[in-house]
Amino acid sequence: MSINIGVIGTGGIGQGHIERLNNQTADAKVVAVNDINKETAAIVGEKYGAKVYDNPHVLIDAPDVDAILVASWDPTHEEFCTAAIRAGKPVFCEKPLADTSEGCKRIMQEEMKTGKRLLFLGFMRRYDAGYRELRYAIESGRLGNPLILHCKHRNMHPSGAAHTTDMSVTGSLVHEFDVIRYLIGEDDPYISAQLVCPRRAKYADEDLIDPQLIYLETKSGIRINLETFVNCHYGYDVQCEVVGDEASASLPDPSHIQVREAGTIGFEIKPSWQDRFPEAYVVEMNEWVSDIKSGIVTGPSAWDGYVTAKVAECCIESRETKQIVPIDLGECPAFYKK
Amino acid sequence: MSINIGVIGTGGIGQGHIERLNNQTADAKVVAVNDINKETAAIVGEKYGAKVYDNPHVLIDAPDVDAILVASWDPTHEEFCTAAIRAGKPVFCEKPLADTSEGCKRIMQEEMKTGKRLLFLGFMRRYDAGYRELRYAIESGRLGNPLILHCKHRNMHPSGAAHTTDMSVTGSLVHEFDVIRYLIGEDDPYISAQLVCPRRAKYADEDLIDPQLIYLETKSGIRINLETFVNCHYGYDVQCEVVGDEASASLPDPSHIQVREAGTIGFEIKPSWQDRFPEAYVVEMNEWVSDIKSGIVTGPSAWDGYVTAKVAECCIESRETKQIVPIDLGECPAFYKK
Amino acid sequence: MSINIGVIGTGGIGQGHIERLNNQTADAKVVAVNDINKETAAIVGEKYGAKVYDNPHVLIDAPDVDAILVASWDPTHEEFCTAAIRAGKPVFCEKPLADTSEGCKRIMQEEMKTGKRLLFLGFMRRYDAGYRELRYAIESGRLGNPLILHCKHRNMHPSGAAHTTDMSVTGSLVHEFDVIRYLIGEDDPYISAQLVCPRRAKYADEDLIDPQLIYLETKSGIRINLETFVNCHYGYDVQCEVVGDEASASLPDPSHIQVREAGTIGFEIKPSWQDRFPEAYVVEMNEWVSDIKSGIVTGPSAWDGYVTAKVAECCIESRETKQIVPIDLGECPAFYKK
Amino acid sequence: MSINIGVIGTGGIGQGHIERLNNQTADAKVVAVNDINKETAAIVGEKYGAKVYDNPHVLIDAPDVDAILVASWDPTHEEFCTAAIRAGKPVFCEKPLADTSEGCKRIMQEEMKTGKRLLFLGFMRRYDAGYRELRYAIESGRLGNPLILHCKHRNMHPSGAAHTTDMSVTGSLVHEFDVIRYLIGEDDPYISAQLVCPRRAKYADEDLIDPQLIYLETKSGIRINLETFVNCHYGYDVQCEVVGDEASASLPDPSHIQVREAGTIGFEIKPSWQDRFPEAYVVEMNEWVSDIKSGIVTGPSAWDGYVTAKVAECCIESRETKQIVPIDLGECPAFYKK
Repeated sequence: MSINIGVIGTGGIGQGHIERLNNQTADAKVVAVNDINKETAAIVGEKYGAKVYDNPHVLIDAPDVDAILVASWDPTHEEFCTAAIRAGKPVFCEKPLADTSEGCKRIMQEEMKTGKRLLFLGFMRRYDAGYRELRYAIESGRLGNPLILHCKHRNMHPSGAAHTTDMSVTGSLVHEFDVIRYLIGEDDPYISAQLVCPRRAKYADEDLIDPQLIYLETKSGIRINLETFVNCHYGYDVQCEVVGDEASASLPDPSHIQVREAGTIGFEIKPSWQDRFPEAYVVEMNEWVSDIKSGIVTGPSAWDGYVTAKVAECCIESRETKQIVPIDLGECPAFYKK
Repeated sequence: MSINIGVIGTGGIGQGHIERLNNQTADAKVVAVNDINKETAAIVGEKYGAKVYDNPHVLIDAPDVDAILVASWDPTHEEFCTAAIRAGKPVFCEKPLADTSEGCKRIMQEEMKTGKRLLFLGFMRRYDAGYRELRYAIESGRLGNPLILHCKHRNMHPSGAAHTTDMSVTGSLVHEFDVIRYLIGEDDPYISAQLVCPRRAKYADEDLIDPQLIYLETKSGIRINLETFVNCHYGYDVQCEVVGDEASASLPDPSHIQVREAGTIGFEIKPSWQDRFPEAYVVEMNEWVSDIKSGIVTGPSAWDGYVTAKVAECCIESRETKQIVPIDLGECPAFYKK
Repeated sequence: MSINIGVIGTGGIGQGHIERLNNQTADAKVVAVNDINKETAAIVGEKYGAKVYDNPHVLIDAPDVDAILVASWDPTHEEFCTAAIRAGKPVFCEKPLADTSEGCKRIMQEEMKTGKRLLFLGFMRRYDAGYRELRYAIESGRLGNPLILHCKHRNMHPSGAAHTTDMSVTGSLVHEFDVIRYLIGEDDPYISAQLVCPRRAKYADEDLIDPQLIYLETKSGIRINLETFVNCHYGYDVQCEVVGDEASASLPDPSHIQVREAGTIGFEIKPSWQDRFPEAYVVEMNEWVSDIKSGIVTGPSAWDGYVTAKVAECCIESRETKQIVPIDLGECPAFYKK
Repeated sequence: MSINIGVIGTGGIGQGHIERLNNQTADAKVVAVNDINKETAAIVGEKYGAKVYDNPHVLIDAPDVDAILVASWDPTHEEFCTAAIRAGKPVFCEKPLADTSEGCKRIMQEEMKTGKRLLFLGFMRRYDAGYRELRYAIESGRLGNPLILHCKHRNMHPSGAAHTTDMSVTGSLVHEFDVIRYLIGEDDPYISAQLVCPRRAKYADEDLIDPQLIYLETKSGIRINLETFVNCHYGYDVQCEVVGDEASASLPDPSHIQVREAGTIGFEIKPSWQDRFPEAYVVEMNEWVSDIKSGIVTGPSAWDGYVTAKVAECCIESRETKQIVPIDLGECPAFYKK
């Protein structure tokens, strides 16, 4: 059984998913594409032999499209996910799920009405071998209970001129907010957030606060130190140390040849997230298609999207108020409990 | 276009390939299986929905089988590869290609008769990201000319009770003989081989010489130190350092979480080759299927199989004669030149 | 010229200093010892051929004692340092300098009266090759301006049954408070402190809060995340990453043989600070004796002791009040400016 | 008790020893210096307040000189060591002990006549913490019996224009020949040597063979792969892996800050042996002085110098004859047995 997929959004990330779906995923084929930029959609459609749709809603409803992948402009995610859910079709959504935590809640409402999970949210770190090994180390009890997490998320430079101080939280750190929950295995852990700002980095634009430090607290008493730095200048770098009762474990740097050269023993650190997590994206797509075939969505959910959006909002409030902000996630609906 | 594949040999390695072809490879489906052990074949056939053949030659000739994967008992490789070539079908063969270098030559003769390459030999290290990075470092000139390679190939324990002293060379080191050529980009490099034996390791059986050291010399003057040790006891370990004029580069250890625990800072080393090279096997299968679709075989060839068999024979002769043995590969046929 | 040294306090740390002064330091000799435990003093005195004094003040005033080393019970440091200063003799004091920041101020007053620096405070991390290299990297501009420091200070278990929650700050973290100033080269950097508490670690006693996290802010806008964890269970571990505009640099783990053994590639982490910093202690003693000979004290000063005491007090206040506590160090007297 | 030392040879290595003896060694003082270059001797003598001797033999016999350190031109070592031994004085000799293994034997004869060991040979690797840890790992049985050693000794560039192909063996590799015996704890292990030559490195002069590979065999069946490469271009690099029955252990790279910078995660490798082994030289001097005080020489002996000279001669013969050369060390005199 091969799954026919329609893709909304054929920019960089969308094209990456199409390439992976067609050439590195078992039993999937991209048959339909749409983009607000019709030229791009046409080129991509031709390259991969997919039908080009001018109207994303027509694509969603097309009878030969089994499932939808949403990789369009962030503010359109809610609209297209909602439409796909109403059409009863499995939908993969790139993060963020919606612009606000309220938007995420609306999607949850829509999905719960259908009686079954349809949405798979693109938090791809859950498919990275290093994070999986870290989670396994925690689950196994080898580390004891986790007490502290030290997490760092650094980009060489902002993703574009439009990058804002808030986007370092809503666009980058949401990956951390999600993967930490994945690691510690708690549905609604966070109870407070604090955000403080070191001095501005040399390569940051004047209207950008960068880096930023976030301190989170969980119900169970775990404390998390987070750093986001989108002008670190040297490479794309993700670090994570979990400190437990018995031992501490760290995410490894990706494996590269060690070169002894010109007075240095070193290895490469890649410039971008695409190069940092290539296998995770492939695993993610394979798992999504596998979920579609089995009819049971196991990937990140709308609730997961909601939690990250809510925490991001509290972090931003903390930066503005200079206060420690309590986080009230509400209870995780049974529908989304694991 | 999806490729229908028939698999001969449904033991461990065969099953691994079937799993990867069906679930991690684009556009491939295993439709036929055969094994000398009919029970195993039946179980695997049922699990993957593939037709079970009692006769491997009938499988090879089946009209709905587009391509053949040979993962049967080593001494049968020549027979099945020859049959597949005669049937004009693409064939993937697990190493070794044949029992002897003469056998490899016979396969080359058969394949050259067909006028086009059909055989893809399973030297999967060429698909490992670390080796690829190492090759790229050499090709780029960053290391200068390679002068020396230090290679180590260690197994926790022999693959089975039937493991012989020769098999450490013909079964394990052939991977090195091949990947070194891949790294340095030479078709027929080797001109001499020497094999010497340290004292027997504690965990080696009495009739096994283990470890063994091999010293190879190339036409271009590169010297290669090789170690095979099939009772190293601590894990499956592959090391490779390329020393060049300008710099030295080493294959990385696989990436695993770093754990600080009980007085040690460490990371895991896996027990077996299956765990060491999982991604390389997936890439290999995807490249094979991609080659089938394009009609142009780019993978390791019968000549590659011949070279490794010939070098292995010279190494064994050196152990027996205690002499440095000259290697005469003959010239690489234009058909196999890159 | 050989310097005759009198040592007050012949417990573990005192004996370590005596051994280093006599056998790893040029031009020094321990000639006098005292301890509240007379038996210990007698044994150590006999072992090293030093005169045993019942009264520490008599030792301080002894005409053949050129310089004093104070390694006695913490609450006695102020008394003995003051006496040595009044006697006009160079004095090395193990940290902490005094029980309170006020006590440190009193010592500063005494020393300033003499018109020249006599006190050398035992912040030995400044003599560790790794920290020196880190400081040099910052000074050289290679990292750009430091923006964030991530520091971790972990002990396998508390130093003794008497270890208190406050002592994790006043006894352990003061090393961090000091070495951070050494790294960033600022006399009076700290302007606020916050201390928060993760859940209690499994191996911590019930009346101990452990681990603790501290967040410091400097005048120049650097933010520092500190962890103290005195029950980390796996070893004595000190980590420090300096994140700058251009690059990030980390303190290395100490160099130990890499062992491939039983499924792990690892190296040792030592259980205690004595094993972590052996060379730093030797360098420290040699520098102290060298300072005595030159007549110019270059080591950590009473002001350095005061700063760490003051910051520790603010951290403890923050834990008690759950507020971010402003730090007012006052101005560094010209006498202590570098 | 302070030892008065006379130094013959005040070039780079001699000055290094003088600095360490005066400022990093307990109970030692350089009181006399001599050099064939009188100007250098005068400068060094004045700097350290040591008497300058025109005649090295007068220095050796001077009544206020307790012990002699020989760091003069290699071909003069035998003469000065012999004189010191005849004068009954402890003597530290930089390697090599003599120009030939016969010369080493003559020194052994002289020393044995005195009835007690006087000579301490400067094989400083025995005092390196990494090698000591490696030896301890072997002695402890943790690795099982050693089966194979992989050793690499690389210099950025030759020590000077006068560097010859032989000197890569007699000047550099002798360190390996010695430290391997130290590691495996055997007095007279070597039974055969083979030397082969890869193609010449780009940065090697035309009349220099570089790199060179040596294969040694021991009585107990250990095989050793050695590399010397004096134009490796990237740094001074010493590597050593000991492969045993149970585990493998490697000498660590020296500890330096890890820097994440410009697409690379790396740490420094120093350009020269002085920077690679600074602590080992200090330990060596302290141990020598300690030996003088105790009257029992524990350091490397004339026999150790003889063994390395003999192995070097066999390696050179192997390069010239292209044969595997048997090594006949003769029996270690009881006088030199450990």
